[in-house]
Amino acid sequence: MAQKQEESSVKYNYARRVSNMKASDVRELLKVTETREIISLGGGLPAPELFPVEEIKAVACKVLEEEGAQALQYSTTEGYLPLRQWIARRLGDTEGLAIDADNIILTNGSQQALDLTGKLFLDEGDVVVCESPTYLAAISAFRAYGCRFAEVETDDDGMLPQALEQALDANPTAKLIYVVPTFQNPTGRTWSRERREALLEIAARRGILVVEDNPYGELRFEGETIPMLKSMDGQGNVICFGTFSKIFCPGYRLGWIVAEKGVIEKYGLAKQGTDLQCNTLAQREVTRFLQDYDIDAHIGRIRETYGRRRNLAIRTIEREFPEGTAITRPQGGLFLWLTLPGGLNARELLPASMEKGVAFVPGESFFPNEKVTNTMRINYSNATDEQLEKGLTILAEVVTEALQGA
Amino acid sequence: MAQKQEESSVKYNYARRVSNMKASDVRELLKVTETREIISLGGGLPAPELFPVEEIKAVACKVLEEEGAQALQYSTTEGYLPLRQWIARRLGDTEGLAIDADNIILTNGSQQALDLTGKLFLDEGDVVVCESPTYLAAISAFRAYGCRFAEVETDDDGMLPQALEQALDANPTAKLIYVVPTFQNPTGRTWSRERREALLEIAARRGILVVEDNPYGELRFEGETIPMLKSMDGQGNVICFGTFSKIFCPGYRLGWIVAEKGVIEKYGLAKQGTDLQCNTLAQREVTRFLQDYDIDAHIGRIRETYGRRRNLAIRTIEREFPEGTAITRPQGGLFLWLTLPGGLNARELLPASMEKGVAFVPGESFFPNEKVTNTMRINYSNATDEQLEKGLTILAEVVTEALQGA
Repeated sequence: MAQKQEESSVKYNYARRVSNMKASDVRELLKVTETREIISLGGGLPAPELFPVEEIKAVACKVLEEEGAQALQYSTTEGYLPLRQWIARRLGDTEGLAIDADNIILTNGSQQALDLTGKLFLDEGDVVVCESPTYLAAISAFRAYGCRFAEVETDDDGMLPQALEQALDANPTAKLIYVVPTFQNPTGRTWSRERREALLEIAARRGILVVEDNPYGELRFEGETIPMLKSMDGQGNVICFGTFSKIFCPGYRLGWIVAEKGVIEKYGLAKQGTDLQCNTLAQREVTRFLQDYDIDAHIGRIRETYGRRRNLAIRTIEREFPEGTAITRPQGGLFLWLTLPGGLNARELLPASMEKGVAFVPGESFFPNEKVTNTMRINYSNATDEQLEKGLTILAEVVTEALQGA
Repeated sequence: MAQKQEESSVKYNYARRVSNMKASDVRELLKVTETREIISLGGGLPAPELFPVEEIKAVACKVLEEEGAQALQYSTTEGYLPLRQWIARRLGDTEGLAIDADNIILTNGSQQALDLTGKLFLDEGDVVVCESPTYLAAISAFRAYGCRFAEVETDDDGMLPQALEQALDANPTAKLIYVVPTFQNPTGRTWSRERREALLEIAARRGILVVEDNPYGELRFEGETIPMLKSMDGQGNVICFGTFSKIFCPGYRLGWIVAEKGVIEKYGLAKQGTDLQCNTLAQREVTRFLQDYDIDAHIGRIRETYGRRRNLAIRTIEREFPEGTAITRPQGGLFLWLTLPGGLNARELLPASMEKGVAFVPGESFFPNEKVTNTMRINYSNATDEQLEKGLTILAEVVTEALQGA
């Protein structure tokens, strides 16, 4: 490339979909927080002090000693068989799913599950029905395929069935319903069993596919487990995603999709053209960890830490934030959802908050169509207890000042 | 999922592009060769005995000891800065490219570079101009975005400039020209300097983007180095791909894209929605290997082995195959291209060959439109010397028998 590289004679003639691609607030925040001393309540990062570094060192050595070159070579698109078998057994044990390894394909984290789902199901102009608000990275993954979104009103128990019916009446050719029913990102809410049944009944009656994104399901620290949509569904209407990012380490980029075998074959074709396969070494290291160590004990430590931090976050918010602030009370997962008093605009508070050293994600990023501006997502998993309390106290000051200024 | 899962009430309503997705011959072969004792001349696998397993064990330990949880956490979409800096320096040293880390984004192998390029540039119905034959996984990556292909006649020195002009006249809105100019997959051919200049002149005059896929460039074991298109181009007309898969280990799934900074930003947006980022641990382990060990010495061993095997393959083919067989004589890379005598159909020989324990890829997979049926791609990097000689001898028998039967 010559020095004059920026004077290209090429007019980069991008595909139409590129006009829909926007930088994610969260990823942009992550960049800033990597270069400055910032207390981040913004990302969805796990608590790094819980990563089992020593154990991973041991499994890395063992895999290279015992499996050698095979662990560094190309492998199959679907993923390492023992790992897919482990996932199938796990979902059999925890959710009663009658599946085997051929119902599973490994992905580069859940994000790739979203992308491959867009690739398989979405033509330009297709409609995705989703919760309002919904996971922002699902919006960007699906939007790259030129889809539109129909948002469905959601309360503390999940989508309102009547609102879902209306959305489907208005969009009779909608391709799929995308939901995060357990400890939702961004709100931390969990759908009740009744709402799950209602969704499945509506989807089955209308013959529409349900995509259940379940990255946080294992991270319950309070209340009773509610079955996954996938395990309540008798009709193969549900494709579900899972990931090792939140119960193990996100750096490995290992997630999975569970679906009928014929559908998994299609995912395999899509993944083959997309990136051939997941990292071979990563698949074998994670498998070895699951064989040699107690993942449930590890998940137990995560639950305990996140539960403690959720309590601390709620206590701090109740003590420090001005009257009129509303929050959700998640029973698991990584996030809570905060509604600001006095119609304050969360995005407008971000510069002042960043200036004082605290990052959060304005809620409007999670609404694909209508912008609700008075909300913010608070992550309580990543910062230490001290940082969390300090960060929320600072954020409360920013909010209080804005309220007084308004 | 209930037992009755296969009786879904959902009619899976796939996107139009799914009808274009086909299983790659190579990946399907790989599945078979994993379960049976087969001499594979089919895939594009590196020689596993050259993987530096001990050194990788050492760097894995060091990364986890010194970088700990950071190496297991989420990180940036563009990729680990020291690794992007290393690539920029390397391409400065070897190709004279005046680039820095911001001209580079890391990808899950070159396959993801292909996919992201499709995502950024290809709308349904767009035309990709390519060599005839061309890399089959590029065909599947681009085809997923609904493009068509214009194949350009190619001889031992590269695309025929006049044929390229004709293809562009016939497709004046073609989006990009995709080429593998050095040790091409599947033919092993390398474009001459003159043909490279002609391509760049034509592309610049018409303002069309050139995508240079260069996974094998460092693996020259004979002849003089010819500069990359990217380094001959003064106008920012060329986006190029590279990968650690062929000079290090493919299991890490680490490749890269080099382009102007504004274009890399777009790739970053596309990758963010696609899979967030590459494996954090892999990026740091590869970086540490490059810092602690001599990659050039390692590449030297690969070159020596592949050069020896290329010689062995040519000798064996010349000795064993029937008269009328033609082959290319690659000066580097992993593949040679064999044209069968008597108009034999390579795909029809595959069952007999597999039966006798030898896999190859029929050449027709590498032609997106017109099917040339009397060719096959021979990989000489993966099998041991003994297997290679034996495999080619068996394949020669299969060809001879078919010729006698015809």
